[in-house]
Amino acid sequence: MKNISILGATGSIGTQTLDVIRKSNGEINLIGISANSSVNKIIEIIKEFKPKYVAMMDEESAKSVERFCIENSIDIVVYKGIEGLEAIASLEEIDMVVTSVVGMIGLRPTIKAIEAGKDIALANKETLVVAGELVMKKAKEMGVDILPVDSEHSAIFQALNGYNEKDVKKIILTASGGPFRGKDIDFLKKVTVEDALKHPKWNMGQKISIDSATLMNKGLEVIEAHFLFNCPYDNIQVVVHPQSIIHSMVEYNDASVIAQLGTTDMKLPIQYAINKKVRKDAVCDSLNFYELGSLTFEKPDLDTFKCLKLAYKVGKEGMLSPCILNAANEEAVALLLEKKIKFLDIAELIEEALEVFKEEKTKEVTIENVIRLDSEVRKYIRQKLN
Amino acid sequence: MKNISILGATGSIGTQTLDVIRKSNGEINLIGISANSSVNKIIEIIKEFKPKYVAMMDEESAKSVERFCIENSIDIVVYKGIEGLEAIASLEEIDMVVTSVVGMIGLRPTIKAIEAGKDIALANKETLVVAGELVMKKAKEMGVDILPVDSEHSAIFQALNGYNEKDVKKIILTASGGPFRGKDIDFLKKVTVEDALKHPKWNMGQKISIDSATLMNKGLEVIEAHFLFNCPYDNIQVVVHPQSIIHSMVEYNDASVIAQLGTTDMKLPIQYAINKKVRKDAVCDSLNFYELGSLTFEKPDLDTFKCLKLAYKVGKEGMLSPCILNAANEEAVALLLEKKIKFLDIAELIEEALEVFKEEKTKEVTIENVIRLDSEVRKYIRQKLN
Repeated sequence: MKNISILGATGSIGTQTLDVIRKSNGEINLIGISANSSVNKIIEIIKEFKPKYVAMMDEESAKSVERFCIENSIDIVVYKGIEGLEAIASLEEIDMVVTSVVGMIGLRPTIKAIEAGKDIALANKETLVVAGELVMKKAKEMGVDILPVDSEHSAIFQALNGYNEKDVKKIILTASGGPFRGKDIDFLKKVTVEDALKHPKWNMGQKISIDSATLMNKGLEVIEAHFLFNCPYDNIQVVVHPQSIIHSMVEYNDASVIAQLGTTDMKLPIQYAINKKVRKDAVCDSLNFYELGSLTFEKPDLDTFKCLKLAYKVGKEGMLSPCILNAANEEAVALLLEKKIKFLDIAELIEEALEVFKEEKTKEVTIENVIRLDSEVRKYIRQKLN
Repeated sequence: MKNISILGATGSIGTQTLDVIRKSNGEINLIGISANSSVNKIIEIIKEFKPKYVAMMDEESAKSVERFCIENSIDIVVYKGIEGLEAIASLEEIDMVVTSVVGMIGLRPTIKAIEAGKDIALANKETLVVAGELVMKKAKEMGVDILPVDSEHSAIFQALNGYNEKDVKKIILTASGGPFRGKDIDFLKKVTVEDALKHPKWNMGQKISIDSATLMNKGLEVIEAHFLFNCPYDNIQVVVHPQSIIHSMVEYNDASVIAQLGTTDMKLPIQYAINKKVRKDAVCDSLNFYELGSLTFEKPDLDTFKCLKLAYKVGKEGMLSPCILNAANEEAVALLLEKKIKFLDIAELIEEALEVFKEEKTKEVTIENVIRLDSEVRKYIRQKLN
């Protein structure tokens, strides 16, 4: 029996994590949950799973949830705000936190969880992007496992199992290429946010769908892989693989490549992470190789999809450079979803932010610096548009 | 420093093993070698590697080698016959034997090596086919490792590393499909031995090239996989994958598939086996995913390529059934190479032998029974043709 909290329980990964718990034969016990403001969804989860603690990032939402629970005699502790998320992440009763919030908002609760000695099933890549060194160092100090939930990183994690990191020649991150694979700049000038949200292979949240369309998602994953697997950027290769069957690969020094394959179902990597690499009965379909068709591979187009190139650049610069990129990207994606900017503006805004804040790039990665700089960059991007 | 013997040093796997030794920076030391009758080739190996022991299966060849060594003041012990192979396989000084002889002739020396506590780098699949249970049981008793050299079994071995056999749902053996993939019976009626020897992907010896054309090679590999990985036949699936990039795969109970990929170069699995799963610097090229083209998968055509179906059947029957199939196949392939039968006769002869010797099928698998039955089946096949 394992006790867990889910940060971001109403989102795409959160919802699929609940499904994995449903199918765990009672082996996984949900103790704490959090959400931003989805009151109705969180109440459904409370009714079904009966967790002991809930946190709502939004204060009004927290009050609504509290009111509902009192009226219905549900015995639960209700927290609010970022402190609420931190509380959910560090509960005495839990062994592990699934961090499935979107964006660098996950940083503080993740750090709190690590400091409290909780294992992390990490679906919140932005946390590693903005403060990877800090997070990995703290995890090592505390003897905490960071178990990746991203399908690509789970694939690498599985391909590394039983082997030695020192024998790794390179990590090969596969990318579906998103909805605009093969398109040129002229095409991208005209795409709408609706086009960008139509991911060909994965059913995901809005932020990650847009990131997939710009290839920024792959860029963030490159940085995530760098920190998770202690791998130099020059040894991380992105290969576009539109069918998304090979989820990623590791090439070893002897030229042998180990790959993990599966259907495009996030429940598999979630299950593998939650169970700390112990394989359980399937919660998703098997691949049928007789029906698979062909698997293809391409080089990513870094001139058209500039975000990926920028991610490699800031990754290599290190320090606070990825924080600037991430903040500018998060805000730009929000603006695209609000239809205030166009698709290609995302990369432009990020490049501009990296130029405007270049003095900050080489400052030390502390939680305070990350949170301050993140806020400044977001403000800059917002104000530019008004 | 590891001391090894190679049985079948002048064949395809033997020659590539020598290449791996050349590139081992002196970590692998060649102590004993054997060959059938290739005197000139074995003398070249003696001159270059200076082994202490040599065995020639053929008596006249042994005399020629001995004469040469005396005349040239080369200090080496020369053995002959099957006892010579057994001596080479069980030398006091060695840690491991590479069994790269072709056919069930490898059985006695392999057993001898196991009884002497030597690890086995197994390239001689026929040994496991005819006496898998016996060999694996003895290896377990003696604490001896059986390290597969076949690219498919090496792939499975690599995909299993770090995982638990009990979590395996199925083994997926990939097959190139051979030179006649997609052809029908009418086409196969007219093919020549030269056509059959033209393997599209792998450069191999004659016996295995013919076995690949009939798909018997895959059938033998299914039986080999059954014994090596303790996997029921119903959980071993053959998938035709003409590009031979994915060398084989393991599906786990959670529906995750781990695959090993590489170029079509036997030096990689040889190196991995010889070094007992320790990864060394590459002796073969890396895959270039940007240039790979597409990977495809098909169901094997068991009606046209009957040998694969027969192998599953005898595998499930167990006991001496695989021995009959193997003996009939070895003799039929030899007859095809001598141009005394046609391509499709191979499966016919095997089916006939399985019928003629059906009383023998359920007898106990002992070395004596295997050797006797093998000889009887071969004699039957030969006599039929005269």
